Amino acid sequence: MRAVASRNGQLRVADVPQPEPAEGEALVKVLACGICGSDLHFVRFGPDIVKGSMDSGNGRFAPDLSRDIIMGHEFCVEVVGYGPNTTGPVGIGDRVTSVPTRGAYSNDYPGGYSEYMVLDASMLLPVADSVETEHAATTEPMAVGMHAVRMGQLSGGEPTVVYGCGPVGLATIASLRNEGAGTIVASDFSPRRRELAGIMGADVVVDPRETPPMSVLEQQGYTPGNDVVMFDAIGVQGTIAMLMREAPSRGGRLVIVGVCMQEDSITPMAGIEKEIQLQFVLGYTPQEYAETLDAITAGGIQPGPIVTGRVGLDGVAGAFETLGDPEEHCKIMVTPHEDNSL
Amino acid sequence: MRAVASRNGQLRVADVPQPEPAEGEALVKVLACGICGSDLHFVRFGPDIVKGSMDSGNGRFAPDLSRDIIMGHEFCVEVVGYGPNTTGPVGIGDRVTSVPTRGAYSNDYPGGYSEYMVLDASMLLPVADSVETEHAATTEPMAVGMHAVRMGQLSGGEPTVVYGCGPVGLATIASLRNEGAGTIVASDFSPRRRELAGIMGADVVVDPRETPPMSVLEQQGYTPGNDVVMFDAIGVQGTIAMLMREAPSRGGRLVIVGVCMQEDSITPMAGIEKEIQLQFVLGYTPQEYAETLDAITAGGIQPGPIVTGRVGLDGVAGAFETLGDPEEHCKIMVTPHEDNSL
Repeated sequence: MRAVASRNGQLRVADVPQPEPAEGEALVKVLACGICGSDLHFVRFGPDIVKGSMDSGNGRFAPDLSRDIIMGHEFCVEVVGYGPNTTGPVGIGDRVTSVPTRGAYSNDYPGGYSEYMVLDASMLLPVADSVETEHAATTEPMAVGMHAVRMGQLSGGEPTVVYGCGPVGLATIASLRNEGAGTIVASDFSPRRRELAGIMGADVVVDPRETPPMSVLEQQGYTPGNDVVMFDAIGVQGTIAMLMREAPSRGGRLVIVGVCMQEDSITPMAGIEKEIQLQFVLGYTPQEYAETLDAITAGGIQPGPIVTGRVGLDGVAGAFETLGDPEEHCKIMVTPHEDNSL
Repeated sequence: MRAVASRNGQLRVADVPQPEPAEGEALVKVLACGICGSDLHFVRFGPDIVKGSMDSGNGRFAPDLSRDIIMGHEFCVEVVGYGPNTTGPVGIGDRVTSVPTRGAYSNDYPGGYSEYMVLDASMLLPVADSVETEHAATTEPMAVGMHAVRMGQLSGGEPTVVYGCGPVGLATIASLRNEGAGTIVASDFSPRRRELAGIMGADVVVDPRETPPMSVLEQQGYTPGNDVVMFDAIGVQGTIAMLMREAPSRGGRLVIVGVCMQEDSITPMAGIEKEIQLQFVLGYTPQEYAETLDAITAGGIQPGPIVTGRVGLDGVAGAFETLGDPEEHCKIMVTPHEDNSL
């Protein structure tokens, strides 16, 4: 089958063996798979990521970069078969989505930048007829936002600030709106991303070069206390230190959902003086993933506006380039069986 | 009156004006004042501290380093007078302690390394006759430990690891024991500090060069989960990054109570992969301060063993040197009216 493989930081279209579903697995046909910022990061900063993962003691993201990795973990797929002695929750031909149960960034299992994948049959979630394929494929990034919001432990009505309105920031905004946050302030340099932030549910959207996000809350009568929750969806060096400076004078919470891939520098004194809480978050639980699909189905989360383009496998490398400019695109869907182009 | 003043990183005994109590203030005679690690840091890293404080946006620790600062914020004192139209909770001649209500590290108000100070009369806490003066003077550092434990949000019975057994770490251990933590593992390079950690209530004390603290919990059957709470009472560059590596594979909480005064480097990837929570903490609330004095009075916290020496004002500079060696001393009390020496 055809797939987009990455090796040593290079993407190419390759012919690879179609996977065979083992017992407990389903063989699925990829209908749409979103390109994730983490995939861009992985191509660019692979060695840093592997080093960071090993340094953490976990080694969760430590594949062999010199061997093929077929990325793609935000997918809506069609079930085309099951492994031996295996049944699933849906029949052949039905659409499903799923957490990437056979691993993302794996040397052993292809992800969604390929015509076919195998998945854990027991984890498949049926996609309702009313939900567009591309919207179902956003379940994964939207679940990242829901998880970040849950980890922020909002008790309801707190003011929130989302820094960075890429897909992760936008997903966070959508979940904040869906889960009943107070004022949602969103901040991004890009006019296009700010427009999307408003569409996804931010109350106030600012260019931080002109309006410090925290000043919006102050203008609304907010007094620094224990309740403001800040979301770092930027994920580049220096962001954590910057947000620690911007945090309210006491007790702010900072949920770090954007992933900075390199070493980073902070000023502990700033954290100490303000008693800041930094909550690093990753991914989502299977339960949150299912709840996100439910919210998309019910309309509480409407991901449509973030999907701005689609490409066939031949267009993936170009799409990776294009996504470097936030004005152009937000979420690009890969359609391995359709020859779309931007 | 005589006092120990610091200016541009140098300590000297100086004659300074005795403060006059204004309305709402008490004039107090300093009986004992502990030397705090923060004071050592302040002499050594003053410019870094001021810069970090300004960078945080708070400027809470930003006095003029080129003018005299009389440090000392861990005191037991005797009330010798009140300002105009002012009464306090105790009579003249009674012993009290108090949060340093007129500021620590101030250019304007002398701290406890002097014969007399002024304090907010309404904040004075009477010291019971049964409590030794030096023990009452440890209320402040012991309250730092209680606050750290409270900010760790233990629900009861969680395993805990305290990294660094200086006065802050020992105070944390004392409060963990007093507040019903589960297994308390303590870690320090110094044999003398490890001995004190055991006396203060640690269940298992390790030299981290020989036994990784987390391995103790693993030997006891602990499975990584959301419940282990780690306390960073080391406060030097690299500690936060090291503890992020040592944290359990998912969901550990790290309470940062030791203050690193310089920029520090972390690996955000490690935080992300493990969903670590970093809680920076500072000081204590007035309520926690009062509860700490109550615990000392009732015997739930027994600070006696940490007090290892006492010096008059002429011995303060030497004591600052001596405290660089953890084998020698832990908490040295300054006695401005008694000519003690080590």
